[in-house]
Amino acid sequence: MAEVKADRVINCSAYCEGKKVGMPKIDNVHEDLKIKDRFVWIGLREPGPEMLKKVQAEFGLHDLAVEDAFRAHQRPKIEAYGDTLFIVLRTIQMKGEKIDLGETHFFLGRNFIISVRHGSSLSYAHVRTRCESTPHLLQKGPAFALYALMDSIVDQYFPVIETLEEKLDQLEEKIFDETQKRETTSEIYQLKRQLMDVKRAVSPLIDICNRLMRFDLNLIEDETRPYFRDVYDHAIRINEMVDNARELLSTSLEANLSLISISQSEVSKRFAGWAAIIGIPTMVAGIYGMNFEFMPELNWRYGYPLVLTLTLGLCGGLYWRFKKSGWL
Amino acid sequence: MAEVKADRVINCSAYCEGKKVGMPKIDNVHEDLKIKDRFVWIGLREPGPEMLKKVQAEFGLHDLAVEDAFRAHQRPKIEAYGDTLFIVLRTIQMKGEKIDLGETHFFLGRNFIISVRHGSSLSYAHVRTRCESTPHLLQKGPAFALYALMDSIVDQYFPVIETLEEKLDQLEEKIFDETQKRETTSEIYQLKRQLMDVKRAVSPLIDICNRLMRFDLNLIEDETRPYFRDVYDHAIRINEMVDNARELLSTSLEANLSLISISQSEVSKRFAGWAAIIGIPTMVAGIYGMNFEFMPELNWRYGYPLVLTLTLGLCGGLYWRFKKSGWL
Amino acid sequence: MAEVKADRVINCSAYCEGKKVGMPKIDNVHEDLKIKDRFVWIGLREPGPEMLKKVQAEFGLHDLAVEDAFRAHQRPKIEAYGDTLFIVLRTIQMKGEKIDLGETHFFLGRNFIISVRHGSSLSYAHVRTRCESTPHLLQKGPAFALYALMDSIVDQYFPVIETLEEKLDQLEEKIFDETQKRETTSEIYQLKRQLMDVKRAVSPLIDICNRLMRFDLNLIEDETRPYFRDVYDHAIRINEMVDNARELLSTSLEANLSLISISQSEVSKRFAGWAAIIGIPTMVAGIYGMNFEFMPELNWRYGYPLVLTLTLGLCGGLYWRFKKSGWL
Amino acid sequence: MAEVKADRVINCSAYCEGKKVGMPKIDNVHEDLKIKDRFVWIGLREPGPEMLKKVQAEFGLHDLAVEDAFRAHQRPKIEAYGDTLFIVLRTIQMKGEKIDLGETHFFLGRNFIISVRHGSSLSYAHVRTRCESTPHLLQKGPAFALYALMDSIVDQYFPVIETLEEKLDQLEEKIFDETQKRETTSEIYQLKRQLMDVKRAVSPLIDICNRLMRFDLNLIEDETRPYFRDVYDHAIRINEMVDNARELLSTSLEANLSLISISQSEVSKRFAGWAAIIGIPTMVAGIYGMNFEFMPELNWRYGYPLVLTLTLGLCGGLYWRFKKSGWL
Amino acid sequence: MAEVKADRVINCSAYCEGKKVGMPKIDNVHEDLKIKDRFVWIGLREPGPEMLKKVQAEFGLHDLAVEDAFRAHQRPKIEAYGDTLFIVLRTIQMKGEKIDLGETHFFLGRNFIISVRHGSSLSYAHVRTRCESTPHLLQKGPAFALYALMDSIVDQYFPVIETLEEKLDQLEEKIFDETQKRETTSEIYQLKRQLMDVKRAVSPLIDICNRLMRFDLNLIEDETRPYFRDVYDHAIRINEMVDNARELLSTSLEANLSLISISQSEVSKRFAGWAAIIGIPTMVAGIYGMNFEFMPELNWRYGYPLVLTLTLGLCGGLYWRFKKSGWL
Repeated sequence: MAEVKADRVINCSAYCEGKKVGMPKIDNVHEDLKIKDRFVWIGLREPGPEMLKKVQAEFGLHDLAVEDAFRAHQRPKIEAYGDTLFIVLRTIQMKGEKIDLGETHFFLGRNFIISVRHGSSLSYAHVRTRCESTPHLLQKGPAFALYALMDSIVDQYFPVIETLEEKLDQLEEKIFDETQKRETTSEIYQLKRQLMDVKRAVSPLIDICNRLMRFDLNLIEDETRPYFRDVYDHAIRINEMVDNARELLSTSLEANLSLISISQSEVSKRFAGWAAIIGIPTMVAGIYGMNFEFMPELNWRYGYPLVLTLTLGLCGGLYWRFKKSGWL
Repeated sequence: MAEVKADRVINCSAYCEGKKVGMPKIDNVHEDLKIKDRFVWIGLREPGPEMLKKVQAEFGLHDLAVEDAFRAHQRPKIEAYGDTLFIVLRTIQMKGEKIDLGETHFFLGRNFIISVRHGSSLSYAHVRTRCESTPHLLQKGPAFALYALMDSIVDQYFPVIETLEEKLDQLEEKIFDETQKRETTSEIYQLKRQLMDVKRAVSPLIDICNRLMRFDLNLIEDETRPYFRDVYDHAIRINEMVDNARELLSTSLEANLSLISISQSEVSKRFAGWAAIIGIPTMVAGIYGMNFEFMPELNWRYGYPLVLTLTLGLCGGLYWRFKKSGWL
Repeated sequence: MAEVKADRVINCSAYCEGKKVGMPKIDNVHEDLKIKDRFVWIGLREPGPEMLKKVQAEFGLHDLAVEDAFRAHQRPKIEAYGDTLFIVLRTIQMKGEKIDLGETHFFLGRNFIISVRHGSSLSYAHVRTRCESTPHLLQKGPAFALYALMDSIVDQYFPVIETLEEKLDQLEEKIFDETQKRETTSEIYQLKRQLMDVKRAVSPLIDICNRLMRFDLNLIEDETRPYFRDVYDHAIRINEMVDNARELLSTSLEANLSLISISQSEVSKRFAGWAAIIGIPTMVAGIYGMNFEFMPELNWRYGYPLVLTLTLGLCGGLYWRFKKSGWL
Repeated sequence: MAEVKADRVINCSAYCEGKKVGMPKIDNVHEDLKIKDRFVWIGLREPGPEMLKKVQAEFGLHDLAVEDAFRAHQRPKIEAYGDTLFIVLRTIQMKGEKIDLGETHFFLGRNFIISVRHGSSLSYAHVRTRCESTPHLLQKGPAFALYALMDSIVDQYFPVIETLEEKLDQLEEKIFDETQKRETTSEIYQLKRQLMDVKRAVSPLIDICNRLMRFDLNLIEDETRPYFRDVYDHAIRINEMVDNARELLSTSLEANLSLISISQSEVSKRFAGWAAIIGIPTMVAGIYGMNFEFMPELNWRYGYPLVLTLTLGLCGGLYWRFKKSGWL
Repeated sequence: MAEVKADRVINCSAYCEGKKVGMPKIDNVHEDLKIKDRFVWIGLREPGPEMLKKVQAEFGLHDLAVEDAFRAHQRPKIEAYGDTLFIVLRTIQMKGEKIDLGETHFFLGRNFIISVRHGSSLSYAHVRTRCESTPHLLQKGPAFALYALMDSIVDQYFPVIETLEEKLDQLEEKIFDETQKRETTSEIYQLKRQLMDVKRAVSPLIDICNRLMRFDLNLIEDETRPYFRDVYDHAIRINEMVDNARELLSTSLEANLSLISISQSEVSKRFAGWAAIIGIPTMVAGIYGMNFEFMPELNWRYGYPLVLTLTLGLCGGLYWRFKKSGWL
């Protein structure tokens, strides 16, 4: 972590016609910005206040946006400040059983794009490499770089949701299994929480993409828009998967309750059945344990085996009947 | 499956004034496209990347759309890329107890329509045959072919939903049946899942048809629009059927829980009743089993039959009372 | 039923300035249609394909609308085909405990209105008679006849809903009654189903009336529009009644479950109380039934009555306490 | 009731510049209407058909509106008929435990306002008096009188809702009280019904005020509109209070069920505990009640007190343990 | 409280180019208002009617707004009266376990802002101080002061929600704990109530900010709008947090019910198990307590220990089996 802090500017490159033409220092970036058809792509990671102040000065960013980029813990959003767009996205990754949330902020201008990473997220180095390998696309300008970054973030959502969907499948098996356990209910609840976390990261994305696709942001050229529609499409799909999983989860919680009640009912039936089977000999034995002087059966030669046989027969009959009707 | 893979171009025909005028090779299609009043209708099935590349070159399709058409697993959508429409629909069929999902993609241009089938779906050969048998309709152009294909896909939804509605009816009978079973709850849940699958296939369709009917897509002529309204109408109906079934299913899950609780209550009542009927003679017998020296009843001549009769009478009275009040 | 089939054209009359001026044959209707200020009102019932073909030819109806009118089983809708409106409404009637659904379709043109009845519905003869008795209203043209027919259909919904509301009231009484029965749950479910059927018939009506009231359909003159607002108002009210009943039904289902659980709890309490009252003498009797040689109480002169009295006193005390605390 | 019927015209006054200038007879009202800057304010109560016919003739009201005003049982609504507005509001009052619903209809024209009361509602005499005491406001015309009447109706909603909120508070106490009673569930349900009645009266009001505030009704002058916004604001607040109460009620119904289940669980635990405490001496006594010839304990001098002490000790131990773990 | 009442005008200052230029008396404020580029910022606390009348006269406020500001108990709202905006916000603070609600009203004009505090809320002195320390921002005019005040109010919501979220976490632990308690259900309900209170305070805020950000209120200059977007963003986030907590709460209520049922089931199982273990020796003992003359076992030398051993063995076996299957 320490070295990351030290290395807060991950990368700062200038591009012309889709090709890298230099790696200016942050302090000299304004010189590159003056050159026509050139744009600058900067990657920052948890920058300190001085660094942000420097960047703000170079690119003329708005106070409120810079404050957000510093404090992090924003919800996904898109905001236009004059000619600059400020975009916040959430990054999601599975770390074992837990969801690891991070944030990436973007400043998009006519001739620059700045990404600011906070918390857990994959590096965007591979995105930059891929973009540099397709100069005919990257020459569309910083908006294309934005697309590439957003696409990479959204693509990381899919494995997370698939993990959650798998968990849901496992939960279903547990629910419809014979024994209802406390842990199952608890796991349903935890999964719900995780789905809600993902939902909160994803659902504002639809609106963000919508604005990038449609509204009159003159930063995004017409031929770049279909790319944002592609991200939009992924966002819609993820959203749908999450909603689907949530609805199934709700139903499974109700189904779980039904099955618990059925279990309870089965326990009662079984208990009632065995209570009857044990209770009857006890009653009969009690009767022949009475101390009346005149109880003719007591003196019969075969009274004892007779009573025992009859009682056992009755119990056997009950057992058979309960078994047949599903009580035992 | 192997021969299908081999036969990836199902059909490629050119039409003029609603009549088939030739079956060009994919590679020469551009020549037909130049001829006025002629349009080309191509059917592909799970095409490989080379085939798609060829098609893309011939018809000038957009990279993103072609990538979608190759990767499949899209949600139903409509996207305009310049003069070309890209439409994705889901196909649904029942395979035994399971729902079999597939996908069909369409590229619609001024003078061409290309269908790309993925996964399980019926062949569209019969659609083509029916269209060719009504040249006065097919002469409306590729948009009419699109309608015919969409109509055929949507018509396949109806039997699926009817099967699910039938399942719901069977479930209802099981629910309101005397005994609540674990399987019933599990089946309610499974049906819910299937309904949600259908819902996801159908609900975006409404929006797709809406755009084909209303928005200013100059690919669709005014006189063809009512046909899309027809598909729209079917989509609305299917959607409504699914929503209806889902709502009934939710209610039935709740009703199921109520009935389980009632069952449980009945078991308890019955058990309590019998426990009383068995418990009383046991108690009485216990009393006359005590070893006190001075218990006058024990020495009565008819003490034993008297006590036995009284006890049995009490039990009979209880039985009668419980029976009357519905406890047994 | 047979004679109805034979008599598929119920009525075909021409009107001028609100007064009936003739009863043309279907085949000659086009002659009446040419006459200025004259309109034709035709009533059909489950017409066969030839009849519909004839009508289509006379009035220039669209293929898709005619197909719908023939196949029936449509959802309520309104569709404009050029200058002609095609409207589908559901008719509802109570037949004993069941809801009987039918359909009526309307074709409305500048100078004609055609009604097509399918399935169960009242005859529209009385509507025609009433319209003919108010020529100052009927002279507003076929749109007024449409209003009169729609109003008559919607008025039939009210008694149906009132019947369902009455059922709900009866159900409430059953639910809050002392004993929870299986049938009650089942009846709640059946009522829900019926309400959903009515809902499906009514809710699209609001949109239909809205379009008749507001949109630029030049078939409906401004002074006729308030009449459709009247139908709209009824549709809103029915819709509201249905939604209200559904919400109450949902709540009653939950209340029902609560009451079942309370019943269950009461059974358990009662059982526990009696078990204690029976269990204590059994225990005491058991103790004095032990065969120890040295049990001084056994030899007491008044040991037996003493023990009996004490035990009975204890039971009485328990009974009193349970009674007071509501367990028995 | 009878004298009210006789006195159907409550009041009919003409106003000029906010001051009362006469009390014309209904039959001569048209003369007042001709005078510039003069408007007429009429209050009717459950008028008969002849009276309404007279009023209709004087003010040129639409057939459909007059029919509604006669038949009553309308939902709250606003309808424009040419230059006249027809408005229906519901009046609500608590009568003991019950909600008493009434209706008031308004006809608003350029120079007249007519109120028609149906069913239970307070008299509007005080509204008129208050308006007459502020001529600088009343001179804004009949729209201001409409505001004053609507405001008075809406103000009557507040005490009703407060009563219902109080009931909810009492219900909460009952729910979280130790014992769950059947009546509580029933009262929750009844409260829900009453809230739904209020909701139905209030929620359309928002739309009505919205139209009075915003839409291009040239009957309402710009400076009068803020007054309707005031009514709108009250309607929003009442609506919110009702929704709030409904949501709490739903939650309380669920909480109630949970508590019933907990109660049930507590009963079971207690019963189980006592059953064990009684069952163990019974078992031990049974063992020493066996008639084996060779049971050494039976001949011990202190066998009986020993067994008794041990058993009682065991029971005491159980009691202590159950008490500690909350089972008793 | 008493001295606060006496000190109802908290502060009244005039500003020019962001700097304080005087502290006029309320009665002379109109003189400051005449001076160009000067605006007045007044803070009132629960003002009496005379004070409000004076303020109304000085600033020409609308009757209805002043009445609202006096009576308080408004819902959050924004209303334009000519050139003046009237805004109502709710203030929220935790006081121990309880939520303390207050209200602040704002009158915003071209050259004045008046805040009126009602009930519990922090003083706005620090807001004024902070504004005065950034004259380059405060010179944007009274709209900036409005932003600063709103921002301060909204910032007070965060700790409240965080407290509630913490409570939710504690509740979760209690719910998934081994024993279900009555208090847990009651606490869930109370938390729900508190969340609803917060929700009611927050949700209208979104609409208010939206109007301040977007609509054509010429009181708010373009460069001030991003600041309101900042408040909007906070409102959205708080709203989302509340909705999230509410949904989790609903799920936890359901999970709670499931766990109560499982507990109940476990109690039943345990009871059933022990009943069997105690019931069997009782039955066996009863049998050998019968008084038949001919019961050979009774005379066996080792009859007693044999029966005892067998019975205890059986009980041990049952115990082991129940333990293994989780019944005990």
